[in-house]
Amino acid sequence: MLAGEQCIQPRGNLHMISVEEALDRILAEIQPLNVVQAPLPEVQGLVLAQDIVAQEDIPPFANSAMDGFALQSKDSKPHNGKLPRLRITGSIAAGYVAEHAVEEGTTMRIMTGAPVPPGADSVIQVELTSTESSDSPWVEIQQEVAPGNNIRPAGEDMRRGQKVLTRGQTIGPWEIGILATLGYATVPVVRRPRVAILGTGDEVIDIHEPLQPGKIRNSNSYLLEAAVRAAGAEAHRLGVARDTVESLREKFTEAVQYDLILTSGGVSVGDFDLVKDIMQEQGKMNFWRINMRPGKPVAFGQIKGIPLLGLPGNPVSSAVTFELFGRPVIRKMSGHAQLLKPQIDVTVENGVQEKAMRRHYVRAHVVWHNGHFIARTTGNQGSHIMTSLLNANALVIVPEGGVTIAPGAQAKAMMLDWPEV
Amino acid sequence: MLAGEQCIQPRGNLHMISVEEALDRILAEIQPLNVVQAPLPEVQGLVLAQDIVAQEDIPPFANSAMDGFALQSKDSKPHNGKLPRLRITGSIAAGYVAEHAVEEGTTMRIMTGAPVPPGADSVIQVELTSTESSDSPWVEIQQEVAPGNNIRPAGEDMRRGQKVLTRGQTIGPWEIGILATLGYATVPVVRRPRVAILGTGDEVIDIHEPLQPGKIRNSNSYLLEAAVRAAGAEAHRLGVARDTVESLREKFTEAVQYDLILTSGGVSVGDFDLVKDIMQEQGKMNFWRINMRPGKPVAFGQIKGIPLLGLPGNPVSSAVTFELFGRPVIRKMSGHAQLLKPQIDVTVENGVQEKAMRRHYVRAHVVWHNGHFIARTTGNQGSHIMTSLLNANALVIVPEGGVTIAPGAQAKAMMLDWPEV
Repeated sequence: MLAGEQCIQPRGNLHMISVEEALDRILAEIQPLNVVQAPLPEVQGLVLAQDIVAQEDIPPFANSAMDGFALQSKDSKPHNGKLPRLRITGSIAAGYVAEHAVEEGTTMRIMTGAPVPPGADSVIQVELTSTESSDSPWVEIQQEVAPGNNIRPAGEDMRRGQKVLTRGQTIGPWEIGILATLGYATVPVVRRPRVAILGTGDEVIDIHEPLQPGKIRNSNSYLLEAAVRAAGAEAHRLGVARDTVESLREKFTEAVQYDLILTSGGVSVGDFDLVKDIMQEQGKMNFWRINMRPGKPVAFGQIKGIPLLGLPGNPVSSAVTFELFGRPVIRKMSGHAQLLKPQIDVTVENGVQEKAMRRHYVRAHVVWHNGHFIARTTGNQGSHIMTSLLNANALVIVPEGGVTIAPGAQAKAMMLDWPEV
Repeated sequence: MLAGEQCIQPRGNLHMISVEEALDRILAEIQPLNVVQAPLPEVQGLVLAQDIVAQEDIPPFANSAMDGFALQSKDSKPHNGKLPRLRITGSIAAGYVAEHAVEEGTTMRIMTGAPVPPGADSVIQVELTSTESSDSPWVEIQQEVAPGNNIRPAGEDMRRGQKVLTRGQTIGPWEIGILATLGYATVPVVRRPRVAILGTGDEVIDIHEPLQPGKIRNSNSYLLEAAVRAAGAEAHRLGVARDTVESLREKFTEAVQYDLILTSGGVSVGDFDLVKDIMQEQGKMNFWRINMRPGKPVAFGQIKGIPLLGLPGNPVSSAVTFELFGRPVIRKMSGHAQLLKPQIDVTVENGVQEKAMRRHYVRAHVVWHNGHFIARTTGNQGSHIMTSLLNANALVIVPEGGVTIAPGAQAKAMMLDWPEV
C-alpha cells in the first residue's frame, strides 16, 4: 500500500458487504424495547405487547337490530285468517332495560340497540306493523316472524374469554375501537423508540442561517427527523457536531440517552470522518461500507450499548439508506414483525441506462396502470441531487455488476408508500 | 301512510342517495382551510400553499465529489512518458474555502463536499495518486483526468430562480429536506383541520366505566379519534351527548368551534335520533341516507356554518363511513388534491354470498400474490361485528341490487392502506 493512500485511508474493516448482509447484521443487534402500559389514544401505531381477551360478551346483551316491536314470535302468526293485534305494554330505548317482561299477547316498542326484554324472542321492524295512533295501546303485526328475528345475540361479535387481539399486532384506529369496546382504557405496548439525530461536519450550518462560502444547510437532520416520525418513533435533533473528536464526544454523551443514534456524515474515508473513530473508542463498529448506491458509506455499531447507524452525508444517500436500514431498525425496536417494504415487479418505462457496479437503488414513481405497475425514474440519480427524491414513491433495484435496464424492461421495485410486509 | 308509522318515521328527505352522489354533495360544501406560516418540523404531512423557488444555486458552489486532489486537468497528462508530479500547496476540508488558487504545476488536497479552489478544473480521487509520506509536498498523478472530473457544479441540483416545489404538494420527509436545504425554516401551508368528535346516545358510557345493563362503551369516539389523526387532522373528543335536545344543543355549542363535527349515532329513524333535528334547527341538512351497507344512516349538513358529518352508531358502520366520507373531507380541508383511496381489481378468494340490495362494502384482506391481488373477506359482515374490521386493509365493493360474488371471481376493492389518488 502506498504511503499517500494510508494517510487518508479507512481505519478498520475494508470489506464492502451486501445490502442483505448489512440488514441481517443490523437487525441481529436490535431488540424490541421494553413494554409500558399506555392509554388508548396514545397507543396508536404501537405494537400490542399481550393478547387481549374479551372479559365480557360483545354485544353484552341481546339487542334489537331495528326500531320496532319486541314480541313472542308465536304471537306473530295470523289466527283464523286475521292479523294478530298485540297490546303495547311499554317502550325500551337504547341504554335502558325493560321493567317487565313481554308476555303472550303483548309487545313493547323497542329501539335499535336496546336490550331485548325478557319474554320476547324476536323483534318485528316498525315498517311491518300498524298502529291507529301514536298513543294507541294496540299494534297490528303484519308479517310472521321467526324466533331470533332482528335480534343480535349477546356475544355474537366477541365471546367472553375469547382472544380478540394478538400480541404483536399493530394498534390502528380499528383496534382502538375494539379495545374501547372491551373497556381497555390502557394496554401494554412496546414503547415508542426515542431517536437522537446528529448532523456532523464543519460545513453544516443551521437552516436559519444565511449561506456562507463553503457552507451548506443542515437539511439531513430535518429530513431524518421527519422520516423518523413517519416510521413511528420520536425524533430529537441534537444539532451538528463539529469535525473534532471533542465536539463529537460531547454530542455522543447526550446521544446515548436515547434508544438509537442516527448520524449523517462523518462515516466516509476522509481525515475528518470521525464518527467511526468515536464508535471504536466508546463502543464497537460492526461495519461501515455497503455495496450499494447511493450510500456506500453506512456505518453500524454501538456507543455505550446504544445502537448507532451512521448514514452518509449526501442528502439522497441519507434519505435512501434511512429507508433501507433506519426504518426497519425503528420498526424492530417498536416490536413490529413486518419490517421491510414490499418488492414488486414493475415495468421501467424509461429504463436505467447508467451503469453502476454497486447495487443501485433508483428513485422512481410507480403507478398501477392497465393491470401493470409502471415505474418512471426521477432524473439525475446523483447522490447530491435531492430533486431526484421528489415524486418518488419507490426504489427500482438494479442488481450489482453494471447492469442496465432497457426502457420497458422489468425490474424489482421497493414500494416506499406501501405498508411493510 | 299509517299513523303508527308516522310516530317513528323519518323527518325530512326520504331519498336514499348513492355513495357517489353523497360524496359529490359532501365535497361540494368543503373548502380548503386558511393558509398559515408554520415551521419545518410541524409541516410534515401538510399541503404546501405556495410554490417554492430556489433562492440560491444548490449545491451553492462547485464542490468535490471525492476525497482527492484538486488540479488543473492539463497537469494530469503524462509528460515524456513520465507520470506528472504536482506540488501540494494546501488542503481544503468541507466547510472551508481555499486561501489561494491552484496554479499550473500545483495541487491541493480536497475532501468530499469541499469547494473546488480557484484555478482547479478537476479533482482526482486519492486512490489514483501516490505520495511518499503523509507530509510529503509532492503527489504523483497516476491517471489523466478530464476537466470537470469529480466536480459537482454549482446549481446542478437546483438553480437559483427554479421552481422546486409546487403549491398543493404534500410535505413529506424528503420535501422537508429540500426546504431545509433552501433555508426555508417556515413555509405557508394549509392549516391542519381541527375535528370535534361527539358520541351520542343514553346507552353510551365511557370506556373507564364498568358495563351496566343496557349500556355499551363509547368505542366510536376513540376509533374516530384515531382515524381522524391517521387522516392528518387534530381530533378532539367532546364526550357523549345524552338523547335530549338540551344535551345535544349544549354539545353542539362547543362543537361549532372546530372545523368539522363528526357525530356517531343519532342519525337513524328512531324517536331518539335527534342529531338531524338539531341540524335542521341550527343549520341545514343536506342528506341523511345513503344506499350502502354498512352505514345507510349517514347525515351530512352544517350547524352554524360548520360542516357536520353524522356517522351511524354501529361501530363498523361508523368506521367504514368515516373512511368513505370523513377521510376525504379532512383531506379536502387540508388542501390535498388526492382525496380517494385507489380502487383495484381483485380476485375474491372466498367470494361474497350474502345478498344486499344496497351497495355493500365488504371488509377484506388483500395481498399481492403471484401477479394478482387476492382478497379474502373477514367473516361476519354485520354492522355490529367489530371483529370483521380486524386484519382488513380493503373494502371489496359489491354493486347494488343483490349481487353476489362467486368464490374466485373478480371485484373492485378499495385499498385502505394505499395512498390516495
